[in-house]
Amino acid sequence: MALRRPLGCAVRRFSAVPGKEWLTEDFLSSLRAVVGSPNVSTATVVCEQHGRDESMHRSCPPDAVVWPQSMEQGGVCFNLTKMDQISELNPEDFTVAVEPGVTHKALNRFLRGSGLWFPVDPGADASLCGMVATAASGTNAVRYGTMRQNVLNLQVVLPDGRVLHTAGQSRWPRKSAAGYHLTGLFVGSEGTLGLITQATLRLHGIPEATVAAVCAFPNVQAAVDSTVQVLQAGLPIARIEFLDEVMVGACNRYSGLSYAELPTLFLEFHGSQQSVEEQVRATEEIVRSNGGSDFAWAREPEARGQLWTARHNAWYAALALRPGKKGYSTDVCVPLSRLPEVLLETKEDLLDSKLTGPLVGHVGDGNFHCLLILDPEDVEEKKRVAEFAKRLGRRALAAGGTCTGEHGIGLGKRQLLREEVGEVALSTMRQIKMALDPKNLMNPGKVL
Amino acid sequence: MALRRPLGCAVRRFSAVPGKEWLTEDFLSSLRAVVGSPNVSTATVVCEQHGRDESMHRSCPPDAVVWPQSMEQGGVCFNLTKMDQISELNPEDFTVAVEPGVTHKALNRFLRGSGLWFPVDPGADASLCGMVATAASGTNAVRYGTMRQNVLNLQVVLPDGRVLHTAGQSRWPRKSAAGYHLTGLFVGSEGTLGLITQATLRLHGIPEATVAAVCAFPNVQAAVDSTVQVLQAGLPIARIEFLDEVMVGACNRYSGLSYAELPTLFLEFHGSQQSVEEQVRATEEIVRSNGGSDFAWAREPEARGQLWTARHNAWYAALALRPGKKGYSTDVCVPLSRLPEVLLETKEDLLDSKLTGPLVGHVGDGNFHCLLILDPEDVEEKKRVAEFAKRLGRRALAAGGTCTGEHGIGLGKRQLLREEVGEVALSTMRQIKMALDPKNLMNPGKVL
Repeated sequence: MALRRPLGCAVRRFSAVPGKEWLTEDFLSSLRAVVGSPNVSTATVVCEQHGRDESMHRSCPPDAVVWPQSMEQGGVCFNLTKMDQISELNPEDFTVAVEPGVTHKALNRFLRGSGLWFPVDPGADASLCGMVATAASGTNAVRYGTMRQNVLNLQVVLPDGRVLHTAGQSRWPRKSAAGYHLTGLFVGSEGTLGLITQATLRLHGIPEATVAAVCAFPNVQAAVDSTVQVLQAGLPIARIEFLDEVMVGACNRYSGLSYAELPTLFLEFHGSQQSVEEQVRATEEIVRSNGGSDFAWAREPEARGQLWTARHNAWYAALALRPGKKGYSTDVCVPLSRLPEVLLETKEDLLDSKLTGPLVGHVGDGNFHCLLILDPEDVEEKKRVAEFAKRLGRRALAAGGTCTGEHGIGLGKRQLLREEVGEVALSTMRQIKMALDPKNLMNPGKVL
Repeated sequence: MALRRPLGCAVRRFSAVPGKEWLTEDFLSSLRAVVGSPNVSTATVVCEQHGRDESMHRSCPPDAVVWPQSMEQGGVCFNLTKMDQISELNPEDFTVAVEPGVTHKALNRFLRGSGLWFPVDPGADASLCGMVATAASGTNAVRYGTMRQNVLNLQVVLPDGRVLHTAGQSRWPRKSAAGYHLTGLFVGSEGTLGLITQATLRLHGIPEATVAAVCAFPNVQAAVDSTVQVLQAGLPIARIEFLDEVMVGACNRYSGLSYAELPTLFLEFHGSQQSVEEQVRATEEIVRSNGGSDFAWAREPEARGQLWTARHNAWYAALALRPGKKGYSTDVCVPLSRLPEVLLETKEDLLDSKLTGPLVGHVGDGNFHCLLILDPEDVEEKKRVAEFAKRLGRRALAAGGTCTGEHGIGLGKRQLLREEVGEVALSTMRQIKMALDPKNLMNPGKVL
């Protein structure tokens, strides 16, 4: 699950400005002159809303929020939700261009009837350009790739105000070897190199047949072993999601379901009728050999919708385990061969740490989240969570993995990034940041 | 077809040095002290050999050639063929690490019996790290992606001598959102940002069934329309290669074959037995509806080998059309929907220009090459070729495509790169180059 990060959050507090001295009435008037009065706000509640996301990380409110309505309106702190045009749909080339206000659900609604869809789905109804910025992925990435594999071109407002088209203006060849891969550099740059104002995306054909299923396992090892074997058999599975017994229980209660409260896989198969049948047969065989239950089927769109809504609501289901408390999601990703041991060690660590943290994951990619639920007023519990999260990050690093499969670095994982990529890579990233944003205007303090 | 670029070519002539004054005996002694006498050469024939590739572009010989045997040996001009270790094979994770001396054929020989293979295949037996440097692709890219999708991590010696691991040392998660995507930046950087000394690659399972076929069409439009329709139907075809009637004739003569001299598709299908049969049936239907011939089958490994060897020898088959002359390959790539018109206009332009230029292409990606054969002594013909190539590049750009799908920019396409990506993108690339290689030590003069 990738959390949606509000696009309007420019974390001014991390710049050298101590208070709001710079925010003069003159300056605000200038902003209003550009975008219109209703589109500038300094209200505390608005600023705070733009300073936080779905996580429990501390709020870093900007001093002003501005809603531009077009790329030409520049400024301090940007909420791009009003830039919501979908353009350049090329059904024959499987491409479309979207502005930052377009969410992946809005795009898929727009595509209805075209036979096409955009599969990258982080769960929440995130902005597609925001998903570019965080290199998001989600449940379908095991088959269709992450944002990295599904962005063909980006329009970016650079820190100096120039407009960059990373692959040239209005271009969408399937591949290119023309110069440095700027598109790839901006995917996952978390707003630190420029404002993404348009993304040209790769679409996919809606599969002829789609079947979803659920199966339960006697233990975590059996579920994860099945996952690894399905992937190693080269089965082109579209979704393979793990939920531990705590997560299944939480989803049952939150979404009114009645799955066995055991380690469980949610699966989805895409293809021709024949290919789906073949994939299902092969997967069933693997599952059975690991002691898994028979498949509970979700063949019709409605049943499938219910299944995936329950999965996508895992975050809220976890929160409901301790009403009134806050959530803290980890996001490690490890090589498949190391996934069983890392998951099992993490389960043990959870027990030892006496923490509530259902596990859920895009295990086909080796990526899983521990949704820790804690009382933010309880200093001792907060400390235990922070220490657990750090241990988990380091456990993933020791297994040849990453501290973040899809959420990004932001503020909280800067130390883990250093440990993960090393000083040379970090200084190379800094050199790029310095070259493209020498005044450190863009999302200062983040990532590096 | 991607041409192999010799890794040892540091184009010293493009630096400020007018002659070989800098190459003192002292300096050569120092080099010999590091790598040993037999591994330093200033012989004209050796330098010239390292200054050219398979193309007819002018030779830019270095003044000295050095063969280091390990990453620790630094210096001026590098031939990395003696760094040929394959390490860190992880069959369960489908990953392996290779040094620059390892070619894709050597890797696939090494993998024999493991059930795994590396599918990116530019035709020539290229160095895998060289393929990283040029963002190579080739015949299997339509199904398995280009180098961009198949590199997980890189070890790079930076211009200042530090060793960079683009995704951190000894890491190969399937996905990551940790900091800037340095791996993607170095793929396709053509040696201008650092020396790639190791690449961690994504491997694939050998398909259960493989079938290849050939079919001929009454005209170019029908062949290309079939290609577009196969892709648009979402068929997971592994290879779909176009050869025009001139190219088929040349291959027949060069490889002793007897295909009808008509616009032709070479196809390959990978999958389970059942899936391959299904793909073949659907493709045959599309081909038939466009007036294509029945499939000529190559089911057994030997027959398939013969088919693809003929395809891979297209460059030499084209050269044999005018013995003693030189070849000049173009490399445009356009959105699929524009491919038929761009191909047809190019055929007309060839006729109008009175040039010999068989067409061959990875048309599933919208990528094709015109293998122009010319007399380099004939100034007028050289001019016609240069003008044709420029027109073709601009035709691709006008159709929303790129001047290079897989060969890269090098020296010859710097002006087209400017037209393709625009001034802002070009200056952004320059800022990155300046930041990472401020002394312009790495492959100076190339790309930018």
